[in-house]
Parts: sequence; structure tokens; C-alpha cells
Amino acid sequence: MLSERLRDKSLYQKIVSAEEAAGWIRDGMTIALSGFTRAGDAKVVPIALADRAKKENKPFKINVYTGASLGSDVDAIMAEAGIVNKRLPFQADKLMRQKINSGEILFVDQHLSHTAEAIRGNILDPIDFAIVEAVSITEDGQIIPATSVGNSSIFVQRAKQVIVELNVAQPSSLAGIHDIYDPGLQGQRLPIPLTSVEQRIGSIGIAVDIDKIKGIVITNQPDSPSTIEQPDEETALMAGHLIDFLRHEVKMGRLPAHLAPLQSGIGSVANAVFNGFMTSEFSNLEVYSEVLQDAVFDLLDAGKIRFASGCSITLSPRKMDSVLNSFEKYRDKIVLRPQEISNHPEIVRRLGLISINTALEADIYGNVNSTNVLGTRMMNGIGGSGDFARNSRLAVFVTKSIAKNGNISSIVPFVTHIDHTEHDVDVIVTEQGLADLRGLAPRERAPVIIEKCTHPSYRPQLYEYYQEALSRGGHTPHVLEKALSWHIQYATEGTMLIS
Amino acid sequence: MLSERLRDKSLYQKIVSAEEAAGWIRDGMTIALSGFTRAGDAKVVPIALADRAKKENKPFKINVYTGASLGSDVDAIMAEAGIVNKRLPFQADKLMRQKINSGEILFVDQHLSHTAEAIRGNILDPIDFAIVEAVSITEDGQIIPATSVGNSSIFVQRAKQVIVELNVAQPSSLAGIHDIYDPGLQGQRLPIPLTSVEQRIGSIGIAVDIDKIKGIVITNQPDSPSTIEQPDEETALMAGHLIDFLRHEVKMGRLPAHLAPLQSGIGSVANAVFNGFMTSEFSNLEVYSEVLQDAVFDLLDAGKIRFASGCSITLSPRKMDSVLNSFEKYRDKIVLRPQEISNHPEIVRRLGLISINTALEADIYGNVNSTNVLGTRMMNGIGGSGDFARNSRLAVFVTKSIAKNGNISSIVPFVTHIDHTEHDVDVIVTEQGLADLRGLAPRERAPVIIEKCTHPSYRPQLYEYYQEALSRGGHTPHVLEKALSWHIQYATEGTMLIS
Ligand SMILES: CC(C)(COP(=O)(O)OP(=O)(O)OC[C@H]1O[C@@H](n2cnc3c(N)ncnc32)[C@H](O)[C@@H]1OP(=O)(O)O)[C@@H](O)C(=O)NCCC(=O)NCCS
Ligand SMILES: CC(C)(COP(=O)(O)OP(=O)(O)OC[C@H]1O[C@@H](n2cnc3c(N)ncnc32)[C@H](O)[C@@H]1OP(=O)(O)O)[C@@H](O)C(=O)NCCC(=O)NCCS
Repeated sequence: MLSERLRDKSLYQKIVSAEEAAGWIRDGMTIALSGFTRAGDAKVVPIALADRAKKENKPFKINVYTGASLGSDVDAIMAEAGIVNKRLPFQADKLMRQKINSGEILFVDQHLSHTAEAIRGNILDPIDFAIVEAVSITEDGQIIPATSVGNSSIFVQRAKQVIVELNVAQPSSLAGIHDIYDPGLQGQRLPIPLTSVEQRIGSIGIAVDIDKIKGIVITNQPDSPSTIEQPDEETALMAGHLIDFLRHEVKMGRLPAHLAPLQSGIGSVANAVFNGFMTSEFSNLEVYSEVLQDAVFDLLDAGKIRFASGCSITLSPRKMDSVLNSFEKYRDKIVLRPQEISNHPEIVRRLGLISINTALEADIYGNVNSTNVLGTRMMNGIGGSGDFARNSRLAVFVTKSIAKNGNISSIVPFVTHIDHTEHDVDVIVTEQGLADLRGLAPRERAPVIIEKCTHPSYRPQLYEYYQEALSRGGHTPHVLEKALSWHIQYATEGTMLIS
Repeated sequence: MLSERLRDKSLYQKIVSAEEAAGWIRDGMTIALSGFTRAGDAKVVPIALADRAKKENKPFKINVYTGASLGSDVDAIMAEAGIVNKRLPFQADKLMRQKINSGEILFVDQHLSHTAEAIRGNILDPIDFAIVEAVSITEDGQIIPATSVGNSSIFVQRAKQVIVELNVAQPSSLAGIHDIYDPGLQGQRLPIPLTSVEQRIGSIGIAVDIDKIKGIVITNQPDSPSTIEQPDEETALMAGHLIDFLRHEVKMGRLPAHLAPLQSGIGSVANAVFNGFMTSEFSNLEVYSEVLQDAVFDLLDAGKIRFASGCSITLSPRKMDSVLNSFEKYRDKIVLRPQEISNHPEIVRRLGLISINTALEADIYGNVNSTNVLGTRMMNGIGGSGDFARNSRLAVFVTKSIAKNGNISSIVPFVTHIDHTEHDVDVIVTEQGLADLRGLAPRERAPVIIEKCTHPSYRPQLYEYYQEALSRGGHTPHVLEKALSWHIQYATEGTMLIS
């Protein structure tokens, strides 16, 4: 019933088609879309806009801000239509990636907690239209988001005008699980009062001046399911190493029995680690993360997780039906927050999170590249990994020790791009083992990383590099003229293996 | 009068000589010394310990934790005596640097706000002796630090035993300017209540269980004066660029007229920037920084700075006498905090600081190396620069465009070590100009950095690199086989200039 979702009848007159709404957007504008990791994204207006671009004979370009990656192929469709000038702060689409790497689309790779501050501080181009998905709009003018909060609340607050995609395919029972809090201007704000994962500090919806809503588009399209791969032998091994390590930390008195609130990044490894908890002795677990994936709900179902705070819910087809159709049972165990709160350094440090994020590659001193393949080609973006790793109690990075059938070693002499510096990386896990780098100097770290994390086929040549580097000396020994040689060889010969 | 400095008479019996106190320290122990940027450091016990090592025929090694760098040549003397196994989190001594780079001393280069957390979390080797300088010990058992707080409060709290260096050369009028606050365990702590630079949230001294004080050594030795170089033509130019930029930010409504609380790193450039404010129109300035250097006091004297929060006071001989002899007049304008509070991401982000730190080199995409010369040789350490830059409202890095008589360009194709990633660097300033990188994609950043910051003698060859990189494509274009070639050429030919 539309009347339940649109309580203020006067809003009915704002209902328009996606095409009409898309028609309002002009060349040079900046649009801000709801959506975080394929969840709760604006789905039809951006697609109608891309359609318009294809039909019209008048090329135009816009800037596109989001929470994180989008579903429904929105990024692909916009990229294909050639309408994107600048894109931030994160994406994960193959075609968009191509156009970013060819230089056609300008991509600003931001810490996910930073975008809201940059908008609030008037650093970024002002937002002409915020286009946000909602399950309903309350009588008192609050937009109730769907399966993600992302940056929607700052977008709505700061945009000149707002378009709401009211999605009747998203259960209206989602109302009540969001907790919208705005920290206010830097220099004038109070401490964020959050001191536990379940605490609610804000409102259930995004307050909006109704006059700013220029249009409401009724939609009926579920989120795109997650593309997560199920655990394989290697991710299971990695999960095992990490859980053994956490067990040891509890034994040493460095972690409580129920551990500390867990953050896990996107990707199959992070999901596999959570799966590993299913058969472990740990219970009463807490999650303070960004995206809540399948495994979190499995652990909630199994009574292993006590409470999960996130900023989006991204599920596989298997899980999506069961979760969204019986949402009542999760209502008091889940909260979705704006990404600047889910990722806020203040909270991450206060709660003392265990953060688990995925690296593309790491070097022998523990520097991590999460974004640029061979130092140059953007994969997805840094996402929230930096928000968490720098401030967490335990910053874990996971990666398989090899990629591309063993032609790439994910442990290299020198990473070609650094997203996480040696100062911010506590633990590296591959299927080979786990390197605990805390309190170690570079010359102590290198042997541990080589021994524990490297694939056996690359171990000898990595030792050889390190030995030669040692003979040159330095706090962080390197052989500069060979530091990038593995990557260069891969680019020319297709393998990092030195024959 | 000793009785004023040692209120509890029963403490008199704990008075020992430096030699006796040094005699308690055994091979394999971990000692934690007060001291931050040459101020308020433990001065006589570590030196007596080094003396003992030279006299005895029994070699021993200890781990040494501090706040930051020490004065009185303590690091040099300990390094020379060969008694240091591991050192953290920062140092700035020439001889110690040499031994770190030869691998003799293991150095753990930490964010300065992280050390206290690592100690609290039992991550680091436990502390056998905290050796802290004080101006007095109160009746109720509070140690009143001298010119720095640094990590002293967590050291005293966690050490098995405490040795106090009661320094009668430090004015007892320093009592009352410290504000000691302990955030408590991660996962159990409350928000840090600080919302303005002048707010006091803690106690005037470090609470200590008197039984833990094993000895008190009476000393009478001023801090080592700062080694800061006075502004030269180039640092004055850099200050000018930055102040012009801040003026523009105020005009654009992005900063209030009195700016935002300022943090400035160690070094002559940062000091020069503050000097630049002397003749500017800005007033009512606030400082929320680590070390308070000469220029801060000049600006306080001139009524330009309203209040300054720091964690140490490091002055040149010129300024030291005048400040310490008339300390009363600064009493209500200064507070010294533990370094985990002065550098806390929670506070840095809340107050929205403008942070100004020095780079060794930056690359065309805005990645910054603050620590490792030619990627391998440690200079000082990352210090607090990462605590601030990641979380500040405006992260500025300054560096002269060339070093070593022009044989080094501080703007390079690819930095040999990264302490601050492209995600964390807003503005780069050299004497050539200022590059505002906010909201720019890598392909937008490179031309700006090359044009505004690079020395004219290196500009053509940097453009040439970038053009070739562009022809290879990618989000972050590079020519991997040439990325480090400037550094390699410098190492072999003594210049980065391509003839
Ligand atoms: C790093 C990241 C790309 C890994 O993704 P993943 O799906 O878990 O890992 P995969 O092993 O499937 O690797 C993805 C691709 O990278 C390739 N890859 C992995 N390691 C590589 C390396 N060292 N060099 C080059 N390519 C590599 C894989 O071969 C695979 O390629 P394909 O897509 O052509 O098959 C992803 O986790 C990410 O984007 N992280 C950064 C953001 C982040 O951490 N977010 C968390 C908080 S939002
Ligand atoms: C980076 C840092 C070393 C610069 O120090 P500074 O005194 O301001 O700068 P200078 O220009 O005098 O440079 C210091 C030395 O580095 C050398 N240097 C400068 N740039 C260089 C480069 N790109 N490559 C190699 N050497 C370089 C200088 O020649 C000089 O050498 P010298 O001591 O032999 O004369 C110093 O600021 C630092 O340690 N910063 C990191 C920690 C930090 O930021 N702390 C702030 C919060 S604690």
C-alpha cells in the first residue's frame, strides 16, 4: 500500500517517472546516489539518465558520488553511456574500472569515512541532486532508507534538491533499523556518544525539508545479490589461521573471550573468516562493520553473534529471501548507520575493533597495496580499509599468497602502490600462515613474512632479494634497482617466477 | 627547597644517586623514559647506565621506549655504549640513526598516538622501569612532569617500578599546566570529553602508587635547547604560500576567520610557517599540536594565539630563559597533554585541525615519504604526522623542492617509501608554490604537483616521465622500470638530474 509508505498525502503530487526525473539533470551537474556495496542503491533514475544520453544527440557529463559500489549494473550502464566525468569514493564495476584506467573517468579514491567530511566542509563540488532509495517517507518528513545508509544522510542534507526512489520491493519492515546521526561541523561538534555496538544515538530516518524533494519515483526492484564466492580450501585455511591466532590472543589475556567487535571488508576471504566462526567455540560475538554479508546472518541465526552494526546489508540470493522475508527476527540485533559513523576513527579506536581487510599484495616489510594492480590499474578502491586499519586494535590483512595461477606472488619485495603503511598493518594472513608483526622492526618483520606468508614457490627468490638487500644495509633494506623487478617481469613475461 | 618539591617526607628515603638507580637495570629489561622532542626527558639515569656499560666488562642490552626524541645526547650516549636492543617510537639522533641503519639497533617506527595503546593492550614487552622527569611529587602521590608529558603517564601506570628524576632546574611553577587523562581500555572506554583546545579533562599530575617508586634521583640540568634553524628565504616563501592559501579558504567560507586549531610538526619549516603568522592579519589563533616551539610563544606574546595545547615545550636558548623564568604569564594559555591525547584521531577529527608536517619527498600523485631516505635509511620516524594528517580537516605537507644542493628533487616520480598515502595528503607546499589536491583524481594531481611544487630544474624531466607514464595508461600512470630511476641514479651518480 503506497499510503503506508508515503504518509504525507501531499507528497503524491511529487510522483514522477524515472524518465522525467532524469530529465532534470543537466550537463556539468553533480549527482549523489544512495547505495553501498550493491545495497539500497538508487536504481532507476541513473539508468534512465544513461538511456536519455543514448537517445539524445547531446552528449553530457556529470559527477557521481555514492556511498560505495552500486548494484543493478548502474556503474556499468553509466560508464557505457559515457556520462561520468568524476566518480567517488568507491566502485567495483568492471567496465567503469576500464574507463577509469583509460583516463576517461576521473576517480577519486577516498577513505569511506572522509567523503561526508569533504562534503560538509564544502571541499567537493556541491551536489545538485541527491537520488536516494527509500522504503518510506514518514509524516514528519523523514526518509527511511532501505538496505543501506551509506552517505545518504549527508547527501540529502547538502544537496540542492532530492529525488527519492521509493522502492516497494524493499520490505517496509526495514523501518526502525537505521540510526541516523550527524556529527555536525568540525570544530563545533560534540563527542559521538556511541560506546557499544548496539547503542542507538540518532533517528530512524533522514530528516528532509519536504520542499527540497523535487520528485518521487516509485520502483519495484530488489537489490542485486552479492557476488561473493563461497569459501574454498584456501580461504578456509586462512580463516583457520586467523581463528587460531585469536584463540591464542584470548589465552594470552590480550583479548576477552568474546573477542572484540569485528569488522570485515568486502570479499570472499572476509566472508570465509566469518564462516569459520560457525564451527568455533566463540560466541557472544559483536560486529561493527560496513557491509553485513551472508555469514553475519548465519552467525546471528546460530546465536553466535550477539549484535551486528553495519551500514549496509548485502546478501546472496540464498540468504536474501530468508532474511528480508523474516526481518522481524533480526530487528533487535542489527543497526545500520551512516558510513561516516560505521567507519569513524573515533568509534573504531574507542571500541577497539578487530579489522579484517583484503590486500592485493603486501611487501616483506608489511606495506599493503589494496587498490592498484601493478601500481597503475585501479581495482576497486581503498574503501573503508584505511578507516579501520589505522585505528583498530588489531589490523589484519588477508590475501592468497599467489594469484593468476601462481604467476603472481602476492608477497613481493616492494609493493607498487601503498594504501596501508607498515605502521598500520599488525597481521598478514595467507593460506600459508599468519605473520604477527606487532612490535617488530622491519628487519624482524621480513623473515616472518617470508617464512609464514609466502608461497613456497616464491620463498627462495624472496629470501634471495632480502639477503641482497641486507648486504646494502638500512633500516628498511632494499635493492632499489630490483625492488619492482618482479612486477616488471610479470608485465613483460607473464610471470613473477625467476627461472 | 626540596621540601616543596617532595611533599611527602617519607619519599626522602627513596633518594638515590643516578648510579645506584642505573644499577637496578639488568640485561634484557625494558625501560621507558620520559621525554618528547628534547623536553622533559630523563637525563641522568640513562646516562649513568651507559657509563656503567662502559665501565663494566659485562655487555648488556635493553629495550628503550620514550615519548619521542630525547635531548642531552641520551640517545647518542646509549647508542654509543651499545646497550640498546630495541628502540621505539621515535628518535632524532645522528649516531642512533646510524646504528638503526646498520641493523645494530632495532627501531619500531610507530604513530605517536599508538604506543600507549600498544602498551595498554599488552602488545609490547612489559616495562620494567619507567624513568620519568618531574618537577615535584605531590602529597597525594602525583608525579608532576616537567616540560613534556609524552608517554609518561602510561609508562608510570604500566611499569613494574618507577624511578623519578626530580629536576630542580625545571621551574616548579610548571605544576598545573599538565592535564593527565587516561582513556582506559579499548572496548570499555567513554568518549574523550575534550571539545575545545583549552579544555581540561584530567588531573594535574600522574597518579602513582608510591610503593612503585623505587628511587628518586635529584637532578639539576636544563633541557637541551631546540636545534631549530631560523627561517630562511625558502621557508619564508613556503609560509607565504600557505598563509595566502588559508586566506583564500577563509574567503571561500571553508574556514572561519580565526582558522582552525593548528598543528605543526617538528622542523624549521613548520616553525617558519608559524613565524609567518606574526605579520599576518590572523588573530585569535588556536594551537592543538605536539611540541610547542619558539614561534608559538612569540605568537602568544604578540597576542596572536589565544591558546596552545601541546605535549611538550621545546625552546631555543633565546626563548627558554624568557619563557621559563616568567612562566606565570603563560599559565592560563597553555596546557600539556599525554601524546595519545594531543595526537588522538578522535580529537584531531572532532576539532578539525589544520595539520602541517614535513615531507622528505613526495611523488607526482601526492604520496609522501617522511622517514626513509632513498627508501632504506631511517631519518627520524613518522612521529605524529600520521595521527594528524589522516584525521585533520586540512593535511598539509611542506618540503623544499630540492635537497643536497639541487642534486635531489624532493618531488619524484615515485617515492621510495610511503608514510602518507595519496588518500591522506590534501596540500603540498614547496618554496615554488602550493598544490591543492583535494577532490582531484591522480591524473589531475600530477600536473598540479609538477607545475606548482617542482623545482624548475626538475620540471622538464618530471613532465617527461609523466607523459611516458600516461602513454602506458592506468588510474595511476607509471613507467615501473623508470619509477625509481631517479633515486638509483642519485645513489650511483650523485644527482637526480638527467643530463
Ligand atoms: C583487494 C580486493 C580487490 C580483493 O578482492 P577479492 O575478491 O577478495 O580477491 P580475489 O582473490 O578474488 O582477487 C580479485 C582479483 O584480483 C586479482 N589479484 C589478486 N592478487 C593480485 C595481485 N597481487 N596482483 C594482481 N592481481 C591480483 C585476482 O586474480 C582477481 O582477478 P580477477 O578478478 O581477474 O579474477 C578487494 O578486497 C578490495 O577491493 N579491497 C580494497 C577495499 C577494501 O579493503 N574494502 C574493505 C572495506 S570496504
Ligand atoms: C622530514 C624531516 C626529516 C625534515 O626535517 P627538516 O629539518 O625540517 O628538513 P631539512 O630540509 O633540514 O632536511 C633534513 C635532512 O634531510 C635531507 N633531505 C631533505 N630532503 C631529502 C630527500 N628528498 N632525500 C634525501 N634527503 C633529503 C636534507 O638534506 C637534510 O640533510 P642533512 O641533515 O644531512 O642536512 C623531519 O621533518 C621529520 O623527521 N619528519 C617526520 C616526522 C614528523 O613529521 N613529525 C611531525 C610530527 S612529530
